[in-house]
Order: sequence, then structure tokens, then C-alpha cells
Amino acid sequence: MRILVTNDDGIYAKGIEALADSLRDAGDVLVVAPEVEKSAVGHAITLSDPLKVSDVDRNGRFFGHALSGTPADCVKLGVFEIMEAPPDLVVSGINLGANTGVNLIYSGTVSAATEALILGIPSIALSLDTFHDPDFGPAAKVALRLVKFLKKRKRIPLLSLNVNVPALPEKEIRGIKVVPQGVLRQIERFERRVDPRGRIYYWQCGAQNHAELPEETDVGALSAGYVTITPIRCDLTDMRALEKVKTWDF
Amino acid sequence: MRILVTNDDGIYAKGIEALADSLRDAGDVLVVAPEVEKSAVGHAITLSDPLKVSDVDRNGRFFGHALSGTPADCVKLGVFEIMEAPPDLVVSGINLGANTGVNLIYSGTVSAATEALILGIPSIALSLDTFHDPDFGPAAKVALRLVKFLKKRKRIPLLSLNVNVPALPEKEIRGIKVVPQGVLRQIERFERRVDPRGRIYYWQCGAQNHAELPEETDVGALSAGYVTITPIRCDLTDMRALEKVKTWDF
Repeated sequence: MRILVTNDDGIYAKGIEALADSLRDAGDVLVVAPEVEKSAVGHAITLSDPLKVSDVDRNGRFFGHALSGTPADCVKLGVFEIMEAPPDLVVSGINLGANTGVNLIYSGTVSAATEALILGIPSIALSLDTFHDPDFGPAAKVALRLVKFLKKRKRIPLLSLNVNVPALPEKEIRGIKVVPQGVLRQIERFERRVDPRGRIYYWQCGAQNHAELPEETDVGALSAGYVTITPIRCDLTDMRALEKVKTWDF
Repeated sequence: MRILVTNDDGIYAKGIEALADSLRDAGDVLVVAPEVEKSAVGHAITLSDPLKVSDVDRNGRFFGHALSGTPADCVKLGVFEIMEAPPDLVVSGINLGANTGVNLIYSGTVSAATEALILGIPSIALSLDTFHDPDFGPAAKVALRLVKFLKKRKRIPLLSLNVNVPALPEKEIRGIKVVPQGVLRQIERFERRVDPRGRIYYWQCGAQNHAELPEETDVGALSAGYVTITPIRCDLTDMRALEKVKTWDF
């Protein structure tokens, strides 16, 4: 099994090292990742600038290709230029911080997985629910377990799985829940500041109220201590609304 | 009716000028748009840099706020900081080039519309199907017609509509079709070059084969000469796959 590994925290992040290390037990791993952090880039691709690739060797522990682009660029270039043939699977992560709820739409980690889907390759996006003092061990084990599970099947189904792992010791993780994305209306918060020249600028602080989401969503199940799995797609059509709008007489 | 207008081609683009001009017949228009072109940024948001706003006055013809961020940033900052109260509608465009098929997921124009949805505001994304010598007139009229149609309803439904207009004279446009996004597996093409210092770099050229998509998709209907309307959502869950994956014994 040939696995393309990428992320959005950059090729020097601890999360991708843990992921690549772990997945070597399941197959041949090739790393193509952004040379610097590319968080919250959504599904950006690089069209107006050339893409440069450099080789990264972290003292033999870790070898990979660093790209001057986004996670989606890494998947495209990895599949069509760096690899000799498309991989069997693309795995993205392990992201520092959960990718649940509306965050999916801003996430570079998730966009690498949906990009794989667009190219016809099954994929997994993995995120760890903490920003502080991360232990990627349990999430790396989840990744390996999922990949081995998919490998056992006669043919890997063409799906993209968004996986979140709670930042808990392995024994305290309550299990796996397959749940939909929990979408909640957002209220954004900005911090308004004045620069030394008297000009106004803003910092985007983000604000989400996840308190109300039930356990049968990614947000709720993750905070209840479960690994969450959400199959995601790249078709944005709102089918229910489609039927309604068809009846409108414009 | 209060309308927030944005785009991804930047505040100096002709498309946003035509759109803002046209929509003034339907309500109060406020323009908040990127200060420079932000195409193919997907749903990127700016978290690691501050956001700066400057006023743009194009000889009285056009007044707006230029933002050092992405289309999604423009919607967030517009709604929560620049406007006194959230608008009734967000309209994004008119984009130079169609946003159909898998392109939706890369599109800054479309991400502005889905961002509005995340914030609980109805929205429209508008694109014109040409890159050359655009006449934004017919598309601007379509925008006005849609907005007036929504305005007539007792309450604007909380939907996001992705609209594409063929680059045809008004009389040759065959009508409006409400259709789903046409998703086709992508094959990407890169151009490999060598720089004057002997290093390899790549240009992403893009490649899509839309030929096979039926007229009952955005891609097919647009190329057949129809204005296409596709209601889109910000929930990426693949509900069909969800039921399948739930039965798996990990």
C-alpha cells in the first residue's frame, strides 16, 4: 500500500512526523507537505506563483518533500509529479487542534483530504483536539488502526474520512463515533487596535459556541471523549434547497 | 434592504463595480472587498496577520472598503465591524470566469457566499463564464433580478445561491436552470520548468474534462447557454457514506 502523507502545519511539525512514523507499519509512506505552516488556508491552490519543491531530511528519522504551496497543492503535485503513480491513500495531519463543525471549511488539513477525493483517491484527515503540549501518540495509533482496517478490505472505498482524536490518554478515549459535522451559526469576534502611526487594524479572534451541539455531531462526540469519524464530500450542492428553489418562478 | 457586496477579484475589478451599480436599484449597497486579487484562495481566513481596512473612492462612481484579507475575511469583518448591523444579503462577484463543478471548492467568490451562510445571512455568488473581454451587463441584470425576487418574499430564505451567467448577449441566454454542482474526477497538469540557477519549479495549469457532464448540472447547463443557480451549503458531511461507515467494525 502506497500512502501520500501531508498536513497544513508544515513539514517540520511534530504531528506529521508522528503520523508518517506510525503509517510505515501499514505501507510505503511518501511525505509531501508545505514548507511552512499553512493553517486556515481552506482549499486554496497556488495559480499565480510557481511551486518549488525541496527535499527535507530530518537526520534520517524523516524524509520528505517540502512545497512552497498549500496542502491542496501538495496533494496535486504529489500525485501528478512527485509520485510515479497515484497513491492508494492520502492521509493528512496530525493537525494541532480539532477540525470539527464549521472549522472544516477553513481547514487546510481537511482540504488535502477533499482534494484527494477530487482526484479519485481515498483519504483521511486527522486532527488532535488540543493546541497545547500535544501527545500525538494516541492519534497516530488511531491513524494506523484506520489505515489497516481499510487495507483489509478488498478495495479501499473512495471516501474521505475526517477524523478527530480527543487529547486524552489512550485508556480514557471512550471509543469511535461515526457522526455528521455539527454546524452552528457563527459569531465572530475582532480585536480593534491602533498602530503606532494612528491607523486602525483588526485581529480576527474567532468565536464559536459549541456548547449546544449534541453528542451525535463531531463537535459533541469529540468533547465527550470519542474519536469522531465524519465522511466528507466535495459536492457543495444543498439537495434539499435545490428542490425548493426549482419551484421558484424567477 | 441592506446588501454587503464583495468579491475575490479585488475592489478595483470591473465585475464588482458593475454588481454594486446594479444592486443600488434594490437597496443600500456597502462594498467590502480584498484590496488585491484573491482568486483560488478557497475558504481561507487570515488569522496570523492583522487585517487593515482602507477607503476606496473611485471618482464618486464607487465607494468601498478595501481589506488586506480574503473574501471570507471581508464578509466576517464587514458584518461584525464595518456595518452597524448585519446585512439582509451578501452578494459576491461578479467573478471573471465561471465557478462551476469542482471549481466551487477553490473559489474565493463562492467562499464569501458560504461564509455569509455560516454567519446566518442569505447570499448569492455570481460569476461570468469568460476570462476575456467581459461584458458584465447581462450578469449584473441577473443579479438585480434575483435580488428583487428575493426581496419580494416575506422573508429572505437562509440560502446561499451560486449563480453562473453565460458570456452571451442577453437575448441569446436561454433561461435559468436550477441544477446541482457537477463533480467530475480531476486530472491536473503541471508545467515543469528550470530556473536560471538550475532549480526545478512547477506551474499549475489546471485541467478539467467537463465534456461529459449532462445539462442537468451547473457545468452542462452553463455551457448550453443557461444561467445556472445552485443552492450550496457549508456542511461537508456525506450523509450517504455516513450510514455506510456507521456499519463498519473498526
